[in-house]
Amino acid sequence: MASSQRTLAILLGVGPGTGAALARAFAKTHTAVALLARNKDKLDSLVSEIQQAGGEASPFSCDVTERASVEAAFEAIRAQFPQHACTAAVFNANSPLNPAPFLELKEEDLRPNVELNLYGAFRFSQSVLPMLEAQGGFLGFSGATASVKGSAKFAAFAPSKGALRLLSQSLAREFGPKGVHVAHVVIDGIIDTERTRGMVGAPKDDDSRINAADLGEAFVYLSQQPKNCWTHEMDVRPAAESF
Amino acid sequence: MASSQRTLAILLGVGPGTGAALARAFAKTHTAVALLARNKDKLDSLVSEIQQAGGEASPFSCDVTERASVEAAFEAIRAQFPQHACTAAVFNANSPLNPAPFLELKEEDLRPNVELNLYGAFRFSQSVLPMLEAQGGFLGFSGATASVKGSAKFAAFAPSKGALRLLSQSLAREFGPKGVHVAHVVIDGIIDTERTRGMVGAPKDDDSRINAADLGEAFVYLSQQPKNCWTHEMDVRPAAESF
Amino acid sequence: MASSQRTLAILLGVGPGTGAALARAFAKTHTAVALLARNKDKLDSLVSEIQQAGGEASPFSCDVTERASVEAAFEAIRAQFPQHACTAAVFNANSPLNPAPFLELKEEDLRPNVELNLYGAFRFSQSVLPMLEAQGGFLGFSGATASVKGSAKFAAFAPSKGALRLLSQSLAREFGPKGVHVAHVVIDGIIDTERTRGMVGAPKDDDSRINAADLGEAFVYLSQQPKNCWTHEMDVRPAAESF
Amino acid sequence: MASSQRTLAILLGVGPGTGAALARAFAKTHTAVALLARNKDKLDSLVSEIQQAGGEASPFSCDVTERASVEAAFEAIRAQFPQHACTAAVFNANSPLNPAPFLELKEEDLRPNVELNLYGAFRFSQSVLPMLEAQGGFLGFSGATASVKGSAKFAAFAPSKGALRLLSQSLAREFGPKGVHVAHVVIDGIIDTERTRGMVGAPKDDDSRINAADLGEAFVYLSQQPKNCWTHEMDVRPAAESF
Repeated sequence: MASSQRTLAILLGVGPGTGAALARAFAKTHTAVALLARNKDKLDSLVSEIQQAGGEASPFSCDVTERASVEAAFEAIRAQFPQHACTAAVFNANSPLNPAPFLELKEEDLRPNVELNLYGAFRFSQSVLPMLEAQGGFLGFSGATASVKGSAKFAAFAPSKGALRLLSQSLAREFGPKGVHVAHVVIDGIIDTERTRGMVGAPKDDDSRINAADLGEAFVYLSQQPKNCWTHEMDVRPAAESF
Repeated sequence: MASSQRTLAILLGVGPGTGAALARAFAKTHTAVALLARNKDKLDSLVSEIQQAGGEASPFSCDVTERASVEAAFEAIRAQFPQHACTAAVFNANSPLNPAPFLELKEEDLRPNVELNLYGAFRFSQSVLPMLEAQGGFLGFSGATASVKGSAKFAAFAPSKGALRLLSQSLAREFGPKGVHVAHVVIDGIIDTERTRGMVGAPKDDDSRINAADLGEAFVYLSQQPKNCWTHEMDVRPAAESF
Repeated sequence: MASSQRTLAILLGVGPGTGAALARAFAKTHTAVALLARNKDKLDSLVSEIQQAGGEASPFSCDVTERASVEAAFEAIRAQFPQHACTAAVFNANSPLNPAPFLELKEEDLRPNVELNLYGAFRFSQSVLPMLEAQGGFLGFSGATASVKGSAKFAAFAPSKGALRLLSQSLAREFGPKGVHVAHVVIDGIIDTERTRGMVGAPKDDDSRINAADLGEAFVYLSQQPKNCWTHEMDVRPAAESF
Repeated sequence: MASSQRTLAILLGVGPGTGAALARAFAKTHTAVALLARNKDKLDSLVSEIQQAGGEASPFSCDVTERASVEAAFEAIRAQFPQHACTAAVFNANSPLNPAPFLELKEEDLRPNVELNLYGAFRFSQSVLPMLEAQGGFLGFSGATASVKGSAKFAAFAPSKGALRLLSQSLAREFGPKGVHVAHVVIDGIIDTERTRGMVGAPKDDDSRINAADLGEAFVYLSQQPKNCWTHEMDVRPAAESF
């Protein structure tokens, strides 16, 4: 691709924490970022912030649990950025952990996580991979401790993350030889956000929670690995985290 | 439990291969086996065979993709065996691999596997665990190579098996201390059945495909491990299988 | 092999706990057991016990950290059992955990563990595999939690067990197609022995420590798996063990 | 540490491939690099190259299979850089794969790999960790496919790499909370060097072998991860590599 090529990063799951951090990070490495959230109105201040910093960002409403919504979002993206080459995408859906004794769980506790983490990723990947295949690119997935370990009382959450992880492996093995770098990040620790502070209180120091901005840069790093030296899976955690 | 206690094994996914083998094997170690299949009429000859061999077997219709069907099957089981202690259960659902390039897959290719392998296991476990908890017991799950590795073109199958594996881990960690032994068997190889012979031809020798009867005995072994020495995950494969 | 064939199991690391249990267990499934320990005089009572129970057992001195000692032991075994077919062998060396802060460790803390767990297994395998290859057989290795996870302060122990695990994998992949079943057991918990009681006190109940006799039976089970259905790696732990 | 602090990276295993690439890469992020190789004379042209590029590099003779040699090298390093803060170190020992049928291997085929990969890493870590602990820093280890999988005929190599991996895990868990970031890179593919070209021919294209310079940058990236977002293990491979 010519160096004058305009590039686009498509980021899904743009809430106030990691998603916003991904938006800010990829806005520096790409001509434009397409930001997908259930309610695009909530993205206004982030879009403004990125544009004031000299970046280009567009918000798109996308409910990843609905195929039609995903397809509509991608049509809107292509309409808005007809000349941009999509060279990066991140699926960063965020679903609640819902820890609970197994016999108290209802199928309805599990289903939204599966719809989001597995089918959402499936739909997102089907829409974005043809764009990435055109000139090569990066597709990242946010994983969790529960992606690799099913702890007690995590039956509503861990299976959906384990499923996403195996999807990402399958895509990596199919699309790697086609020039698309698929990576899965095992986020092993609490990301410091207003939401997590509300849940578990303020961190005891700067290094005991994952900083969303730094996590965003980890994805940018992966997206920039040269084709001869790709990482498929990377764990990240605070220095003090037990593992 | 008294030695005169009548015991019951509940086996789901009783097709002509592994499921029938599980039925025959657990019929020897338990007073009775409850056999669950989508169409219980197909179980007639197996039930007869077990009874002629001196065992006790009852067929139950159960579509594990429907909660109501699962609950009805368990009500029928409890009605039929009010005095038996359920001390073993195996979830052996069998879903098609459907290998295909990812962009040719439809959500409908993935969804039945998830409904079966993940939600089916979830429903089955919610119905059977209270029975197993009563006096301790065994809950086994059939896994596959795809449970631990997402190969190219396996995006319709591997995520559902990866999800099942993490569910089994979560259950093992929650119910182990309560006396229920949860185990996951990674079946890494082709089971020799009429169906697989139809797909890939006859095996070149006796040892190159997994024998369903021997696989059934592996589950029986796990179900009989003493409480101080439980296995959570065990791989099985033919001697000649590359791994 | 003809059913009248006399069979031999060769067991290394026969101390009072797991090793003795392996001896008692394999003495029931084999015509004879060859018991290898650093000091064969310590095996006298075990040998008597097995013989009184109708088994056949012979003790051999073997310091597995010395190649010459291993070779001499195997020469003595072959001289004593010229007509027996060796169909099972277990390497159950037992080395101290030596947990310590890394900077306090000396190379001398690590070296005996490596000599025992890695080189010992290497030597034992080189001596026993030609015997097992002759008619097929089983080669088992005792692993530990530290075989799969390097915990803090386990730098003197975990590397040697991780090395043994990868050796067992390599042997499984090379010798499986030749009819030798190589298996690795991840023993995840404390085995209840006089030694461990001295270290951590009596168990709080029967099921919170691994019973050596039951662990021995787990190895026997693996050794009897039919060739179409072999397990390479199996974890064992008490029901109450956190994992 | 003050921004005016002079920093030092200590790199072991500086051959013409990855080691030289690590030297060039860390020379850009650190005030000085200490380069350790068995024969420091072979480092002359690399040292010149780094210095001409504006970096500072010093060669040290170090046979990592000899504790005295390692200690002497570190004494020389501290004498030469008394005011520098060591903030990064990489152990990149390179040992031959020696693939061979197990029964053809001699203990002498395995021993040098263990001396290098395990004991070498042990010695290097004991010398460098006290320096890294002083102000926090990075300790990286080069792993391989054989670190996580013991393939057939790799019994002389895989165990030593598996041992190194478990050592790195143990160090990560002990020293992470003390501010030292320990990381292990699973290098899954052939690094393109004169040596590997001699062994397996020229690569068919630019992306089918790992580029040493890019691999060096992967270590630099890890060394610069902020303390709230550390990776312990990362795989790297060419896009076309099967995994």
